[in-house]
Amino acid sequence: MKIEVISDLRESNELVAKKNREIFDQMGAFVTNLMSGPGAGKTSLLERTLEKLRNGYSIAIIEGDIAGTFDAERLAKFDLPIVQINTRGACHLDANMVYQAVSKLPSKKFDFVIVENVGNLVCPAEFVIGEDAKVMILSTAEGDDKPKKYPLMFLESKLCLINKIDLLQAVDFDVARAKNDIREINPKIDIIEISCKTGQGLDAWIEWLKAHIKK
Amino acid sequence: MKIEVISDLRESNELVAKKNREIFDQMGAFVTNLMSGPGAGKTSLLERTLEKLRNGYSIAIIEGDIAGTFDAERLAKFDLPIVQINTRGACHLDANMVYQAVSKLPSKKFDFVIVENVGNLVCPAEFVIGEDAKVMILSTAEGDDKPKKYPLMFLESKLCLINKIDLLQAVDFDVARAKNDIREINPKIDIIEISCKTGQGLDAWIEWLKAHIKK
Repeated sequence: MKIEVISDLRESNELVAKKNREIFDQMGAFVTNLMSGPGAGKTSLLERTLEKLRNGYSIAIIEGDIAGTFDAERLAKFDLPIVQINTRGACHLDANMVYQAVSKLPSKKFDFVIVENVGNLVCPAEFVIGEDAKVMILSTAEGDDKPKKYPLMFLESKLCLINKIDLLQAVDFDVARAKNDIREINPKIDIIEISCKTGQGLDAWIEWLKAHIKK
Repeated sequence: MKIEVISDLRESNELVAKKNREIFDQMGAFVTNLMSGPGAGKTSLLERTLEKLRNGYSIAIIEGDIAGTFDAERLAKFDLPIVQINTRGACHLDANMVYQAVSKLPSKKFDFVIVENVGNLVCPAEFVIGEDAKVMILSTAEGDDKPKKYPLMFLESKLCLINKIDLLQAVDFDVARAKNDIREINPKIDIIEISCKTGQGLDAWIEWLKAHIKK
């Protein structure tokens, strides 16, 4: 008898992520793991996205927060299945937390499942949760030097949304420099400039999302 | 013979933090552990602070980054002792990393040692490094909901600087709400509104820092 030893937390996480993947496949859902630093606009993006898609698509939300249900409360008005994960201090979601949450979703078909990770530009990128795509947000207020300082998240993401484009007049952020640095880290990444406040660029994001639906 | 068992990583960290504390005491330095989410303005604050204090005070800087020497390069113009720590993926500084850095500082008296932590609103608050005070920055661009969502850092800090006050017209940030929430978490915390861009409030920060010098 061969004794399997799971010696690595990362490996153990990947095993659970595969279970999540099977469940998401049964749902038929395209699953995004939405990541960013604190306050870059993850929940605002969800609000704008649900306004535009809730009437044509079946969507579920998994909210990750260290404590509280603040973001889930902001989204309650959309009357969609939302499960809140409280990480109790942990700075990222792992596959097991998402597994617990997925089991609380209604067992039906979904077009999209959007998982909002904890606000952190570092650790969430290290953990697969069974997603189809990591989508990250960089806010112009954070500065154009962030790609080179936090490269892993840019490397792991399929799409980078540059949010708060409306603040360009008020902050020091060179869009061309940021894009060059992002593509140097990850030549295959898609980049879309958006403003959740003014609505700029959101149609391109919605088109990106629709193009990934599995139907 | 009693065998000491260090069963807890946190406990082991505290032992090294005490060693750092002894070294800082020998230096005579007031040591701040400067923390914030990515792009809230830690390095900009250091630039403004060094412009104002470098000619009257003996200062050393320890820079924490995941990779690279970007922040240290921004501060090189001040010609002060700077040691760069690369955490190689870790999302926070711990006492041992700081111990390695301290041993590379010149052995002389310092008025201040400022340690710039990795940009992360979560984990850095969990690790003592031998500091006198944790000082945190909240940027108005991050939103006024952050204190309740990331309470530990506000709880652990002696001072919260609310930076990017110049952006108040362009972002949704209720200063009164943020201050109320911060004081609900930590009634003893000092709060100063600043703008590293316009200079607003920086004199109050400098006064705060001077009041803590050990001489």
